[in-house]
Amino acid sequence: MIKDSHTHHISQQFNAELEEVRSHLLEMGGLVEKQVNDAVTALIEADSGLAQRVREVDDRINQMERNIDEECLRILARRQPAASDLRLIISISKSVIDLERIGDESTKIARRAIQLCEEGESPRGYVEVRHISDQVSKMVRDALDSFARFDADLALSVAQYDKNIDREYKTALRELVTYMMEDPRSISRVLNVIWVLRSLERIGDHARNISELVIYLVRGTDVRHLGLKRMQEEVKGLTAERINVLDAPDDK
Amino acid sequence: MIKDSHTHHISQQFNAELEEVRSHLLEMGGLVEKQVNDAVTALIEADSGLAQRVREVDDRINQMERNIDEECLRILARRQPAASDLRLIISISKSVIDLERIGDESTKIARRAIQLCEEGESPRGYVEVRHISDQVSKMVRDALDSFARFDADLALSVAQYDKNIDREYKTALRELVTYMMEDPRSISRVLNVIWVLRSLERIGDHARNISELVIYLVRGTDVRHLGLKRMQEEVKGLTAERINVLDAPDDK
Repeated sequence: MIKDSHTHHISQQFNAELEEVRSHLLEMGGLVEKQVNDAVTALIEADSGLAQRVREVDDRINQMERNIDEECLRILARRQPAASDLRLIISISKSVIDLERIGDESTKIARRAIQLCEEGESPRGYVEVRHISDQVSKMVRDALDSFARFDADLALSVAQYDKNIDREYKTALRELVTYMMEDPRSISRVLNVIWVLRSLERIGDHARNISELVIYLVRGTDVRHLGLKRMQEEVKGLTAERINVLDAPDDK
Repeated sequence: MIKDSHTHHISQQFNAELEEVRSHLLEMGGLVEKQVNDAVTALIEADSGLAQRVREVDDRINQMERNIDEECLRILARRQPAASDLRLIISISKSVIDLERIGDESTKIARRAIQLCEEGESPRGYVEVRHISDQVSKMVRDALDSFARFDADLALSVAQYDKNIDREYKTALRELVTYMMEDPRSISRVLNVIWVLRSLERIGDHARNISELVIYLVRGTDVRHLGLKRMQEEVKGLTAERINVLDAPDDK
């Protein structure tokens, strides 16, 4: 195609649109990250006002999801992106689902925080919650940073981190079951803490999903369900070859 | 555009590709539906062999997800679908995520079934599991049928049904907490049943997500996060107007 000023103008505008939808995703990510932190703080500091605000912000996150979806749809319909541009749109439209679910899990934590506030007296398990939530927050932040910087290595480290969370979650669960056995009257309150831990573990899973999408975006390989070892090989190894296959003119 | 034989040929082939990817989605859906039923049967009939097979089949489901994703990507890149064709591809590529997660939850149920088999002696809560699983299976089946028949009314009924599941899940949970309090030695085994119920409740959520995508596909309206009443209005009411907006030539 001849690069006349018209085409040049269109491609500039197209790039601006891609950049805009990506920045909207990162903005939504920033808000979701704050929701996770606020929900856990509300729980640990028994701040039901903060928990209530987390629940209210969820509507904004849902709206952001809809807006980003519409942007992606518009770009697909009007710009007909190919190769890496298409991968970007696909990665954004899938990441947005995970971000919205992280928002949902934060709202669930906030709801438990309100229940636990009403019941007064801080139950067992908050040390574990704080510990796991610190790590999960880091995963969410790193997953978003890897998206912002197209950094497949950082994305890989998020996926590797998820294994730790799963292990620590299981350890915490065992301890909480012991508490319940020792003091059956605490069962329903300790269960609330278990639900919080489970939400955190799921948030970790969603961060991992996002990091897999970043690897797909940057490396052109679908690394889901591959296992960490194969995933590492894909990120560190076969890079150039794979990208060539996916960006080949035949793909358009 | 002039409908010459070449264009006609391309559009026939395009339709065949769309039909094919849709049939692959429904095929995956059928397998996933079977996984849910097999996992619950394995649990209730203490059939660890069946539970093991559920875990093995999960690989096939993951592979189906990857294949369908690739098909969608290829169609987006080569055919540049617009309007309702684009909505079909978007709905398929999102539904496939929910189907894969329903598969994951079935595998989790199968894992619990194996644990509970090993521990012997059937614990409390199986009546509730059977009851809720029957309803959740129906939701999954109806969600897939609504996709097969482009039936927005059936899809709406799936979303409405999800509210029942949530209510029954909460009732069952309260009963199981009472069991645990009465017999603290049963705590870790009853917890296994609680995890199963939670997986079933999530499967219901995923079926609801799929039904929302069907409404989007058929009616052209994004009904997520709208609440049942608004969703009903969208399905029963404003139909024609919305479709016109979305399929307007400007959208291409």
